[in-house]
Amino acid sequence: MKELLETVVENCRDSWRQGHVATYIPELAKARADATGIAVWDLSSGLSGAGDTDFTFTMQSVSKVVSLALALSECGEEKVFSAVGMDPLADPFNSIMRLEMDAPHRPHNPLINSGAIVVLSLLPWKESRDRMAAVSDMAARMTGRKAVAVNEAVYLSEKGTSDRNRALAWFLKSVGNLEGDIEDILDAYFRQCSLEVTCGDLAVLGATLAADGTNPVTGERVVSPRVARVVRTIMATCGMYDGSGEFAVTVGIPAKSGVGGGIAAAVPGRMGIGTCGPALDRKGNSVAGLAMLRRLSEELKLRIY
Amino acid sequence: MKELLETVVENCRDSWRQGHVATYIPELAKARADATGIAVWDLSSGLSGAGDTDFTFTMQSVSKVVSLALALSECGEEKVFSAVGMDPLADPFNSIMRLEMDAPHRPHNPLINSGAIVVLSLLPWKESRDRMAAVSDMAARMTGRKAVAVNEAVYLSEKGTSDRNRALAWFLKSVGNLEGDIEDILDAYFRQCSLEVTCGDLAVLGATLAADGTNPVTGERVVSPRVARVVRTIMATCGMYDGSGEFAVTVGIPAKSGVGGGIAAAVPGRMGIGTCGPALDRKGNSVAGLAMLRRLSEELKLRIY
Amino acid sequence: MKELLETVVENCRDSWRQGHVATYIPELAKARADATGIAVWDLSSGLSGAGDTDFTFTMQSVSKVVSLALALSECGEEKVFSAVGMDPLADPFNSIMRLEMDAPHRPHNPLINSGAIVVLSLLPWKESRDRMAAVSDMAARMTGRKAVAVNEAVYLSEKGTSDRNRALAWFLKSVGNLEGDIEDILDAYFRQCSLEVTCGDLAVLGATLAADGTNPVTGERVVSPRVARVVRTIMATCGMYDGSGEFAVTVGIPAKSGVGGGIAAAVPGRMGIGTCGPALDRKGNSVAGLAMLRRLSEELKLRIY
Amino acid sequence: MKELLETVVENCRDSWRQGHVATYIPELAKARADATGIAVWDLSSGLSGAGDTDFTFTMQSVSKVVSLALALSECGEEKVFSAVGMDPLADPFNSIMRLEMDAPHRPHNPLINSGAIVVLSLLPWKESRDRMAAVSDMAARMTGRKAVAVNEAVYLSEKGTSDRNRALAWFLKSVGNLEGDIEDILDAYFRQCSLEVTCGDLAVLGATLAADGTNPVTGERVVSPRVARVVRTIMATCGMYDGSGEFAVTVGIPAKSGVGGGIAAAVPGRMGIGTCGPALDRKGNSVAGLAMLRRLSEELKLRIY
Repeated sequence: MKELLETVVENCRDSWRQGHVATYIPELAKARADATGIAVWDLSSGLSGAGDTDFTFTMQSVSKVVSLALALSECGEEKVFSAVGMDPLADPFNSIMRLEMDAPHRPHNPLINSGAIVVLSLLPWKESRDRMAAVSDMAARMTGRKAVAVNEAVYLSEKGTSDRNRALAWFLKSVGNLEGDIEDILDAYFRQCSLEVTCGDLAVLGATLAADGTNPVTGERVVSPRVARVVRTIMATCGMYDGSGEFAVTVGIPAKSGVGGGIAAAVPGRMGIGTCGPALDRKGNSVAGLAMLRRLSEELKLRIY
Repeated sequence: MKELLETVVENCRDSWRQGHVATYIPELAKARADATGIAVWDLSSGLSGAGDTDFTFTMQSVSKVVSLALALSECGEEKVFSAVGMDPLADPFNSIMRLEMDAPHRPHNPLINSGAIVVLSLLPWKESRDRMAAVSDMAARMTGRKAVAVNEAVYLSEKGTSDRNRALAWFLKSVGNLEGDIEDILDAYFRQCSLEVTCGDLAVLGATLAADGTNPVTGERVVSPRVARVVRTIMATCGMYDGSGEFAVTVGIPAKSGVGGGIAAAVPGRMGIGTCGPALDRKGNSVAGLAMLRRLSEELKLRIY
Repeated sequence: MKELLETVVENCRDSWRQGHVATYIPELAKARADATGIAVWDLSSGLSGAGDTDFTFTMQSVSKVVSLALALSECGEEKVFSAVGMDPLADPFNSIMRLEMDAPHRPHNPLINSGAIVVLSLLPWKESRDRMAAVSDMAARMTGRKAVAVNEAVYLSEKGTSDRNRALAWFLKSVGNLEGDIEDILDAYFRQCSLEVTCGDLAVLGATLAADGTNPVTGERVVSPRVARVVRTIMATCGMYDGSGEFAVTVGIPAKSGVGGGIAAAVPGRMGIGTCGPALDRKGNSVAGLAMLRRLSEELKLRIY
Repeated sequence: MKELLETVVENCRDSWRQGHVATYIPELAKARADATGIAVWDLSSGLSGAGDTDFTFTMQSVSKVVSLALALSECGEEKVFSAVGMDPLADPFNSIMRLEMDAPHRPHNPLINSGAIVVLSLLPWKESRDRMAAVSDMAARMTGRKAVAVNEAVYLSEKGTSDRNRALAWFLKSVGNLEGDIEDILDAYFRQCSLEVTCGDLAVLGATLAADGTNPVTGERVVSPRVARVVRTIMATCGMYDGSGEFAVTVGIPAKSGVGGGIAAAVPGRMGIGTCGPALDRKGNSVAGLAMLRRLSEELKLRIY
C-alpha cells in the first residue's frame, strides 16, 4: 500500500498548478499551495501514508461531517432532517438565493454552509463553550487523537471575513429556521472550521465511518452503525459541493472536502482515506486530492456504484 | 378642495376591509386598521384635509425618500447611482435572491430595503447619532415641522424583528457593496423608518418635491430643483414596491408608500398629497391610500403620463 | 426646431461608436451602424427633421406599442391586463426564468417579448392573415401612412432565428397562458417586428399618442384618449427594456425602443419624436437615440416627472 | 425470495392511497392507481415476482436510462458529458429557470427532461425512424425481450400535451445546446417515454446494469462494464428527480423512476429490481415503489453506501 500511495503522490504532485489556494479567508491564503499528501487507514492492515503527511491544515467543511455525526447521535435523524434536507443541489455552497427561492426556506442538506449552521444550532448544549467542546471532542474521537485544537489565527481570520455566513444565518432566522443567538452559533461554526488536522487524521475519521462508527485506532464505538451509514450516504450525494455528481462518476466514494485543502473519504467496510492539497478547483475542491482519490479508486477498485 | 376630499374619504372609508395591517413588526400590528385620512397642499391654495388627519403613523419606507433626497444633496447623483441602480423591479422589497442573481450585486434602486440601507451608508457623517440627526432634520425641513420624532416603541419593535434586513446588509457587505458598521447603519435605518408623521406632514413633503425643492410652508429651499426632480422620477418608477407599474397606470403620480400606512405623492408644479390608512394590500401599499389617490387623480386630472 | 435638431444630430453623430448593431438576427447585422436621424412632430408646428431621416429600419419592439394599442381598443383593458401585467422588471426582455419563477406565470408587461406574444394572441381575428392585416393597418393609421410594409428579408431572418421566442411561447402555452396555434401567432409576431419605417414615421406615431389618440397628420382618431394614455404610461415604465428606470431619470419621456435602432417617444400634449441609430447599448437601446433624446429633453424641458 | 416479495407487496399494498396518478398526460390518468407489483432478477437465482407482475405501463423517464446507455456506447463519455452535466439538482425535472440561470445553459444531468432530449439528439442516426429503432432495440436488449413496443395511445397523448418539453427544446436550441430538428427529436423522446413494459422487464433491465452490462437472460453483453457503472452512478445521484438525495438515505440503491409508475433499480453484482405502482408522490416517484424498495433494501441489506 505504501508503495502505491507513493506512486499516486508522485503522479499527482503537479496537479496543484491547476488550482488556487482559497483567498477569501486571508489566513488560508498563506497555505503552501503545493503541499500534497495522502494517508489510508485500511481496516485490515492499518495506516500507510505518502507525501506531505505532516502538513497541517484546517478542516473547514470537512468539520460538517463531525457536527452532523454529533447531531444525528444527540438529536436523532427525525429532528435533524426536519430542520435540513438531504438533497444535493447544483448551487454554490453559500447561495442565499436557493434558500429564498424554495419554500420552506430550509437548507437543502447538512453539508452546505446554511445547513451546517442549522445543524450546529440543534445541538443540545446551551452554552457556546459547551457546544464547541462537544464538537471538538467528537472530532477527537473520530480521528483517534486526544484532542483536536483550533487554529486561532484561522479562526480569527474566518470570524472577521464571514459576512456571507452572517447573511445566511440572519436570513434563516428571519424565516424562522434558525433559533438561538446568531453570533454565538456562528462562533462555534468558525471554530469547528478552524480545527487543525493532518491527512492521517482524516484517514482515521474516514475509517471510523467506513467501520460503521467504530474508531479502528481506539476501538471506541463513536457513533452507531446507522448514523455512520447516513453520514456516508450524505457524503456520497452532497460531499463535494456542486461537484458531487461528477465526483461520484469519476471517483465513486463517499467523501467530504474542505477549502482548507483536505478531503476525508470512507470506503464502506474497507478503509478511510485522507488527502491534503490546498490548491482548489473552481468548485472549492482540492485539485491534488481529487487527482489522488481518482487514481487510488481506480487502482484498488473502490467505487461503490 | 376640502369638499372634494371629504367625498373622497367618504367613498373610500370601507376599502380598508380589503387589506391587512402589517404584522411582521409587532408594534405596527397595533395600528387602527380603519383610520382613513387625506391631506393636500395645493401650491396655489395651501392645505386642505379630510378624515383622520390627526392620526399619527410611522413613515417606514416613505422615509427612503427623505434619505435619498439627503444623499443626493450631500453626495451627488454620481456617487449615489454608482452605489444603487435606478431600476424598478418585479421582486418584493426585501428580496435577497435578486441581489445575488444579478452581478454586480448592487441594489436595483434606492427605494427597496437594500437600496435604502446603502443610501444611508453613503451619508458623510461618521457617527450614527449625527447621521440620524441629519436624516430627521431633513424630514423636518421637508415636512415644514420643527422636528420629526422617532416613535420609540416602533423603533424598538423594528430593531427586534428585522432579521431579514440584517441578512440583506450582511450580504451587501459580503459582496463589497456596503461599508461601515452594520448594526450602526441598521440602527439609523430603523430610526428613520420610525419617524412619526400625519398625512398633513406627507402632503407638505410631497409639495416640497412638487415645488422643485422649496418647502411651500417655510419657503426654505430644501433641495435643488434637480434633486427634487430625480426623487420624483424614482418615486414614479419605483415608489410603490412591485405595484409601481400598476399604480402608474391607475393613478399616474410620483408617490412613495410605507407599511405604516402612509403614502406621499408629488404632482409636479401643482400639489403634494399625503394619505393614511394602515390596512395594506398584498404588495404592502395602503388600500385606502390607493383608493383615495386614484379617485383624486381622476377628479383633478393629476396624471403626468 | 430644425436648427435645434441639426445641432442635436451633430453632437450625437459619434455616439454610435459606443454601441453595436444587433447580430442575433442576421439580417439586422447588415444595418448601417452610423445612421443617425431624428424627427419631431410638434403638435403646434408640425414636422421637422435632421440627419438620416431617409434611413429605413424595422420597428422590432416599437411594434409592441402598435399591437398593444390595437388590443386595448379591440379587447378592452380588463381582458388585456388579466392576460399580461403592468410591471416593469429588471430582467432581460426574453427571460423565461422570470416567467417560471413567478406564479401565475403571466408576462410581467406587454412590452417584453412574452407579453407582446400574448397580446397578439388576444386579438379577435382567427386567421393569421387577418390578424396581421389589422396590426399593419393600425401601424399605418398611427404613422399616418397609406401602408406600412413588412421587410421580407428581415421577416424571414427573424423567423429562422427566433428559437428563444418559440421557447417563450411554448412555455406560456404549457402553463395555460397562451391560446391558439403557436407558429401562427409567432408568424404574426415576426411580421410585426419587421414592419419598415423611418424616424419620421415614429415621430407621427409618437405624436398620435401625445395627442390623445388623434393622428395629427390625418386628423383621424386612431385610439381613444384613455387607450393613448395607458399606452404612454406603459411606455414610460416599461418601454426601454431593463433600462426604463434610468431612461426615466435621464430623459423622462414615455418612449419605446426596438433593436432595429428606432425609438418612438410621446410627450403628452406637446409632440412625438422618432429617432434612428442601429448601434445598440448592452440593454438593446439605440445609443444615438438615447443621446439625442436626452439632449432634446434638456433643451426643450420635456420631462414629465 | 418469492415469499419475501409477497410479504413486501402485502405490506405496501395500501401505500398508493398516499399518492396520485399523473394527470398532465391524459392517457396516463387512466392507469389503475392501486396496481402494485415487484420483480427481482437475482444474479445467482434468477427471477421472482409478486403482486401485479402482469400490469403493463409505459417507461416514461425510466427510458432515459436506455438512451443514456445507448449514447454512452455510441458516442463515448466525453461527447455525452460535454453536452450534459453529471450534477444532481434540487429543481423539478422540467425546470427551464435552472437552464437559463446557469451558464453555459447545459442540462445538469442526462436524467432530467432537458438532458434526456439532448442525449437523444447526440445519437448518430440521422433519420428519426432509425434513431427510435436504435432506442427500442436497446430497450429490448436490456430487458431481454424480442421487442419493446410503443403504446400508441400514450405516445399520441404525450405528443399532444408536451408543451413544456417543447419550450425546453427551443430554449436549448436558442442557446446553441441542441442541434437537429426539434419536432423530430421530440418525437423520438415521446416514443421512448411510451415504451411499454412490466415490472419484470425492469428487473431484467436493472440486472443487466447490475451485471456490468451483460443481460443475465440472454447472456448478451449489451453495454461495456464501464458504461454500466457510469449509468448506475448517475442513477444513484440523479435517478429519483429532486428526491434522489432522500432516496439514497432511505433506500440506498441506484434506481430510476418514471411517471408511468415504474422504478428500475440495480444492486451492483447482486440483482436488478423492477416495481410498478402508478400513484406518485409530489416529486413524481411511485409511492408503492418507494415503499417496496425501502422494505426490500432493509431486509436484504442492499444499500451500497
